[in-house]
Amino acid sequence: MSLIVFGDSSSGNCLKVKWILDLLELDYEWSEIDVRTGATRRPDFLSLNPSGQVPAVRLEDGRTLAQSNAILVYFGENTPYTPADAYERARMFEWLFWEQYSHEPYIAVRRFLLAYRKKAPEDLSPQLLERGNGALARMEQGLEGRDWLAGDSLSLADISLVAYTRMAGEGGFELADYPRVSAWVERVEARLGLDATTRALAPA
Amino acid sequence: MSLIVFGDSSSGNCLKVKWILDLLELDYEWSEIDVRTGATRRPDFLSLNPSGQVPAVRLEDGRTLAQSNAILVYFGENTPYTPADAYERARMFEWLFWEQYSHEPYIAVRRFLLAYRKKAPEDLSPQLLERGNGALARMEQGLEGRDWLAGDSLSLADISLVAYTRMAGEGGFELADYPRVSAWVERVEARLGLDATTRALAPA
Repeated sequence: MSLIVFGDSSSGNCLKVKWILDLLELDYEWSEIDVRTGATRRPDFLSLNPSGQVPAVRLEDGRTLAQSNAILVYFGENTPYTPADAYERARMFEWLFWEQYSHEPYIAVRRFLLAYRKKAPEDLSPQLLERGNGALARMEQGLEGRDWLAGDSLSLADISLVAYTRMAGEGGFELADYPRVSAWVERVEARLGLDATTRALAPA
Repeated sequence: MSLIVFGDSSSGNCLKVKWILDLLELDYEWSEIDVRTGATRRPDFLSLNPSGQVPAVRLEDGRTLAQSNAILVYFGENTPYTPADAYERARMFEWLFWEQYSHEPYIAVRRFLLAYRKKAPEDLSPQLLERGNGALARMEQGLEGRDWLAGDSLSLADISLVAYTRMAGEGGFELADYPRVSAWVERVEARLGLDATTRALAPA
């Protein structure tokens, strides 16, 4: 059985999985799941991931795994994308957990509401903009004097954080206000073989 | 310099750090930080953790680390509290990331609003109760046929998830409705040397 990724290709969380597998040159099938159709709430999907969230993967042996950052760690531990130094590895995990708690709920959610739900900015909670900008400011500070978030080369922290940071413009955030973050986005994109035209994935 | 934990002892996130250090019999100082006084927003604290969140630790060499689950991983990797099997370890990470995204924002937040901010239940978003119960139901399912969330003994996933699950009553959740979760809470508490009288930490 091949490795299968169940993902929505407009979701940054799902793209993280594609990127690590591509970097590692692993073979996989991509099974497209459109979250907007409710597909993740149907019994066949819930048997893959009882939490009803993409991405999920089915490994070659049939076992399943969910949570984008946990999947990154599964494939990326003991590779050049996880720092060998214990402290730098801990920093990588600090960013990975911070991403799910303090970045994704504002930046990814505001993008989803504006670009997919077609909400007007004035109908959104001001907290989304404020906390999303707070997250970008925290990254700007974290990148002071360094090219990568943890260690001295691309790590899982960069792969995870770039997913929604590079699309922040779709969420109404001004990346140009954060010069170190902007330069880092281009640096990570270059390593992942992405270009800026793919930052906006929303249908026109 | 000794290891110092900066934490608020009414915060489950901070207690996670205490528990792993006690399990590993490591020496540390506990520096109490009352989040309700705004202490985490002051410059001296921000120099420890620019994100302004507890817990944070200062290691013996003066370097700092934040994010409760990242601190758990730093101290708990390569110990009996992290499964040696790669798949079970991935499951542990799945639960750790899920905790920060799908559990803490509902169960811990509702507890904080009711027990500390003294809000009335009717003034809270119904989503907090609904999603918190969804998280408990997900754990109930995850514990079917097993004593521990990942692997076959206590892991960082149990230590992390028990922190706010055991206090869910303070957030208005009925743990008795989730019998496997209730039994698991007692099992984890026994391993951590805690008893049920410490589940409610809010001042009377």
